Amino acid sequence: MAKSVLIVYAHQSPKSFNAAVKDVAVKELEKQGCKVTVSDLYNMEFKASATREDINGELKNPDHFRYGEEMEAAWRAQTLSDDIKAEQEKVREADLVIFQFPLYWFSVPAIMKGWIDRVLIGGFAFSLEKMYDNGIFKEKKAMLSFTTGASESMFSPDGINGDINVALWPLQNGVLHFCGFQVLPPQIFWSPAHCPDAVRAALLESWGGRLKALMSEQPLKFAPVSCSI
Amino acid sequence: MAKSVLIVYAHQSPKSFNAAVKDVAVKELEKQGCKVTVSDLYNMEFKASATREDINGELKNPDHFRYGEEMEAAWRAQTLSDDIKAEQEKVREADLVIFQFPLYWFSVPAIMKGWIDRVLIGGFAFSLEKMYDNGIFKEKKAMLSFTTGASESMFSPDGINGDINVALWPLQNGVLHFCGFQVLPPQIFWSPAHCPDAVRAALLESWGGRLKALMSEQPLKFAPVSCSI
Repeated sequence: MAKSVLIVYAHQSPKSFNAAVKDVAVKELEKQGCKVTVSDLYNMEFKASATREDINGELKNPDHFRYGEEMEAAWRAQTLSDDIKAEQEKVREADLVIFQFPLYWFSVPAIMKGWIDRVLIGGFAFSLEKMYDNGIFKEKKAMLSFTTGASESMFSPDGINGDINVALWPLQNGVLHFCGFQVLPPQIFWSPAHCPDAVRAALLESWGGRLKALMSEQPLKFAPVSCSI
Repeated sequence: MAKSVLIVYAHQSPKSFNAAVKDVAVKELEKQGCKVTVSDLYNMEFKASATREDINGELKNPDHFRYGEEMEAAWRAQTLSDDIKAEQEKVREADLVIFQFPLYWFSVPAIMKGWIDRVLIGGFAFSLEKMYDNGIFKEKKAMLSFTTGASESMFSPDGINGDINVALWPLQNGVLHFCGFQVLPPQIFWSPAHCPDAVRAALLESWGGRLKALMSEQPLKFAPVSCSI
């Protein structure tokens, strides 16, 4: 059956290496018969901040705005803002979500953190009963694909920045695994800005190769919830 | 000598526990003779996304927008947007920067990530020569102060969310230590939404007590750069 893929993409420039990586993914996945949707966050001028405007209509408690509670209530009442509803519908349809971005301060750029904060809300993406291995999106896959400024050795366990896997923990475990996603190993492009064109071309070709069998890759393993409560 | 403190604060509601924590800090630090400045990000409608509008005037390369390079050039040319200049001036004056926020997805809310992405740019906050122990802000202190939804046991090394110190690594090492800040131990308010009023009052009192000697606390220790390149 044809798979549906959502690429959440955050780079300002269509001439960037991130744009090229995204374009390779769209082309390769469509060649495989996938339906590919791209949320181009900067181009959409996606709102990043979690505010009262994310809810149409009345608040449960207008005197004291509690974002998480109000958003969950608005999700149930179907009174979320249209931009959030549209992204949630894309996530609902997706078998795989790829986050494509340049690493900003050991994490996603603020505009993508805004997508995470505003779209992956209680009720829609998790509940007290449904998280981690029992998470709402446990039938879906997700992965991070990103470029770095620093080199691979700087992000090694002995490197100046520490192990990249530690830097990714809040995203891979705290966001993706938390929502139940099967997390595919990250696609990391080390410091492409400092690579010659030929190396960048080879990196893109290698990514295209990985995409051919991406859907059958084994997800990362996290400690099961039963071991850790 | 009177110290200068900047509180970067991100909560939507003046009735929140985060607001009360911030107010205790302002009051206690002013009592000590500190000059306290608060950047109330939601109230300022602080822009979170890293875009071309962050630069007044010409770009170095209008055909391909590279945020980091353009921002560093604009910093040198003093053509950054006024909101960024104002925040940088506050950082420059500060002896201590406190980040006050509710933990969103194991990290800061997007609006605060936007402050980090847009204010702490190359040239102003770091350079290839000046980072970590030799960082630009090595004479300054910084700390995270935040509330969680989860309990302390969920964020223990054996807990469902893993060790809180791992979740904080990208912020404490990747942002604060990277810029040279001496990082004070985080102030963590575990799940105050689920505490009775009396417990919340006691938490605020305890925070007020910590603030009395905050300036003389020992910073966290990170691996020195000389051990890790």
